[in-house]
Amino acid sequence: MDSSARTIVQKAPEGFLGPELIVSIQKGGIDPDRRRLIRGAFSAALGAMAGSAMGATGNPSDGDAEILNLPPWSTLLGKPVVFKPYGDPSIYETSLARRQSPGLTSVAQASVSFAPLQGLFGIITPSGLHFERHHQGWVDVDPSRHRLMINGLVGRPRVYTMDDLMRLPSVSRIHFIECGANSAMEWANVAVPTVQYTHGMISCSEFTGVPLSVLLDDAKIDRSRAKFVLAEGADGSSMTRTIPMERALDDAFVAYGMNGEMLRPENGYPLRLVVPGVQGVSWVKWLRRIEVGDQPYGAKDEVAHYVDLMPDGRLRQYTSIQEAKSVITTPSGGQKLVGQGFCNVTGLAWSGRGTIKRVDVSFDGGRNWKAARLESPQLPKALTRFNCDWTWDGSPCLLQSRAMDDTGFVQPSYRMLREVRGTRSIYHNNAIQTWRVDRSGEVSNVQL
Amino acid sequence: MDSSARTIVQKAPEGFLGPELIVSIQKGGIDPDRRRLIRGAFSAALGAMAGSAMGATGNPSDGDAEILNLPPWSTLLGKPVVFKPYGDPSIYETSLARRQSPGLTSVAQASVSFAPLQGLFGIITPSGLHFERHHQGWVDVDPSRHRLMINGLVGRPRVYTMDDLMRLPSVSRIHFIECGANSAMEWANVAVPTVQYTHGMISCSEFTGVPLSVLLDDAKIDRSRAKFVLAEGADGSSMTRTIPMERALDDAFVAYGMNGEMLRPENGYPLRLVVPGVQGVSWVKWLRRIEVGDQPYGAKDEVAHYVDLMPDGRLRQYTSIQEAKSVITTPSGGQKLVGQGFCNVTGLAWSGRGTIKRVDVSFDGGRNWKAARLESPQLPKALTRFNCDWTWDGSPCLLQSRAMDDTGFVQPSYRMLREVRGTRSIYHNNAIQTWRVDRSGEVSNVQL
Repeated sequence: MDSSARTIVQKAPEGFLGPELIVSIQKGGIDPDRRRLIRGAFSAALGAMAGSAMGATGNPSDGDAEILNLPPWSTLLGKPVVFKPYGDPSIYETSLARRQSPGLTSVAQASVSFAPLQGLFGIITPSGLHFERHHQGWVDVDPSRHRLMINGLVGRPRVYTMDDLMRLPSVSRIHFIECGANSAMEWANVAVPTVQYTHGMISCSEFTGVPLSVLLDDAKIDRSRAKFVLAEGADGSSMTRTIPMERALDDAFVAYGMNGEMLRPENGYPLRLVVPGVQGVSWVKWLRRIEVGDQPYGAKDEVAHYVDLMPDGRLRQYTSIQEAKSVITTPSGGQKLVGQGFCNVTGLAWSGRGTIKRVDVSFDGGRNWKAARLESPQLPKALTRFNCDWTWDGSPCLLQSRAMDDTGFVQPSYRMLREVRGTRSIYHNNAIQTWRVDRSGEVSNVQL
Repeated sequence: MDSSARTIVQKAPEGFLGPELIVSIQKGGIDPDRRRLIRGAFSAALGAMAGSAMGATGNPSDGDAEILNLPPWSTLLGKPVVFKPYGDPSIYETSLARRQSPGLTSVAQASVSFAPLQGLFGIITPSGLHFERHHQGWVDVDPSRHRLMINGLVGRPRVYTMDDLMRLPSVSRIHFIECGANSAMEWANVAVPTVQYTHGMISCSEFTGVPLSVLLDDAKIDRSRAKFVLAEGADGSSMTRTIPMERALDDAFVAYGMNGEMLRPENGYPLRLVVPGVQGVSWVKWLRRIEVGDQPYGAKDEVAHYVDLMPDGRLRQYTSIQEAKSVITTPSGGQKLVGQGFCNVTGLAWSGRGTIKRVDVSFDGGRNWKAARLESPQLPKALTRFNCDWTWDGSPCLLQSRAMDDTGFVQPSYRMLREVRGTRSIYHNNAIQTWRVDRSGEVSNVQL
């Protein structure tokens, strides 16, 4: 809502997030004292107006006399259509923004921006708030100069313009993209204060493009020897990733569309690879080349980075699937409950192996579980929105969500995950997240 | 892509669209002559660069020597993350915009903006390109001052703040919204030149909000007498619409979320009514009041407007359901085929009564039909994206699409529709659209 009312400033932990952190409390509501202050300010500055004089009690009996004073938007002529050829959010929504974590990397071009999950609804991430993770910053590629080459173990090397690609058979599918390092700080039990920073390296969009299988057929791949493809980006980092052929021929596609329009520059405009269920680093942005080979390429971003350090000291490579995971986005860390009584608990669940079949919510740290309502659509390798009724009695609570996918996989606790993975990993943390609600209604991140 | 290459200027018919009309040919491709010119300009201005020297033939053998000259985005450091807290489309995408039809209404505040369907992908309409139709312009409502009242035949009148509403049980659903007057000009056989103007008063979004049934229960409606509700907006037009109680208690909800974020101001921020399957005028924007009554209210926008003039001279009122309809968005009027050969034909289908079960495409004006591929998800009262393979042999063609929903309803031809509705209607035109492709590849709007 009103951005001044929707944000609080709170101290952040040393070193990681910088001196302070703006936290949206959009759906957590507004501190009642604060709301009284706001209303006071309005009646002073603007006089009482419809509704506001009635208070937030849902009881119209108080202040009826002031109802006739209408706000300006009810009495004046509005703005014309096409005020802007391309529309923007309300002037009251400025507190909802992508945010970088200062100090996370030495230069911003190699850093991350996090999506504000605490203020988002449903499963579609607004393209203007999609998370970013770049290896050498983002670039404005001229689509009329961009080309995609298919080479390597093929009978007929190909080079496509964007016009060529847009004439080919097209698919549109809704999928999540999650950075392999999402929730990374939690391995070290840093307890990052908000869901934007604990889980904000995930987004979900409707992507449109050409199946990779169509392009590989067109290039006449050598099926006896072709076992892997290498995807390469056109930006300065020339980022490359190996993808097994069975996955390339399954549901991977080269996308030019995202949420109904062309990809955004930060997300790979005009062309990126979509590898459903796989960590974001393999969704190569500004895609310029697909090379077909007979073995993994061992690129720096798959042997030195995006590997899992196991308890026995060995590095686990090519662990690309994002396992079933979920998180409660409201109430979540940094938000404050308006007061006791009914509160809709909502969050997101996803699995890189298939469709979310069930989400359970606990209010006592995992001793008791309640099945959440799953919203439609429930799609494979896409976010699923869940909601759960809750009446808060004012006592301290420990909120958790636990996802199950259609393979039967159940999202693990930290204890279960660490028995297998140890504590020295960076990537692929899909443990159950816990939010603590104290007597004041303040919500914070704790680890169980 | 490059906006200069992506748009052509063409004469529009007298009186309706003004002197000229910019037509996106994003997916229709670029005239080959034009492309050669562009490449020439590049080599002159920038020297040859990777890919562009290879041409659009898909054959890398020509111009190999020039491949080593890389474009700047492959050799320089890119922009930092959070370059903007809220991202925008590429600088190359400026030709894709909402557009008003000059002269459609005497003042722009009572006019329409059309969504650029010819350049959109999938089913989600980017919120920045959502169509608009206002009765007195759009307004910037301060959500902290906005209230929703439930009154009339209720045991307990209610007034809710936005914070109150956001604590209540929430649903998220993908639905289309179509203006009852979409395709209106075609009744008079005006043959508006592009799909943006023939069908652009439709959009589809993921909406999030509170079921109306929850609010009506909370207000303790008098179930013996409550048969209708009246929805009222907070803008200067105080637009009101009657909705039957069975529909209000079925799948209608008050929405604050659209495509993951708060509603846009032009679409009713911070609260609008969502009435799935029903014409857009009933989706009251800036919703401030729901009154419960025992008979239709006969508001001006349901007795004088949004009525259907039948052949016998009588006016048909309260015809609110948007029947099954479809349109091919590429190739479509104003676009030009790049050349003979394979061309992906794509479009949209929808039904206000349920789910799209089948879409057929014809290339000979309806003599022969071919089943199109339906993309996922296929949801009730939502857009469905279809694609169909086509190889153009250079001869003139008449392209049509025909939708069927899960009630068995089949989208009618103009002949069938006019037998029942006559020719004097404005609203509820769901006839089959025909696009003519001539030998030059130019696509135009014709009526069969």
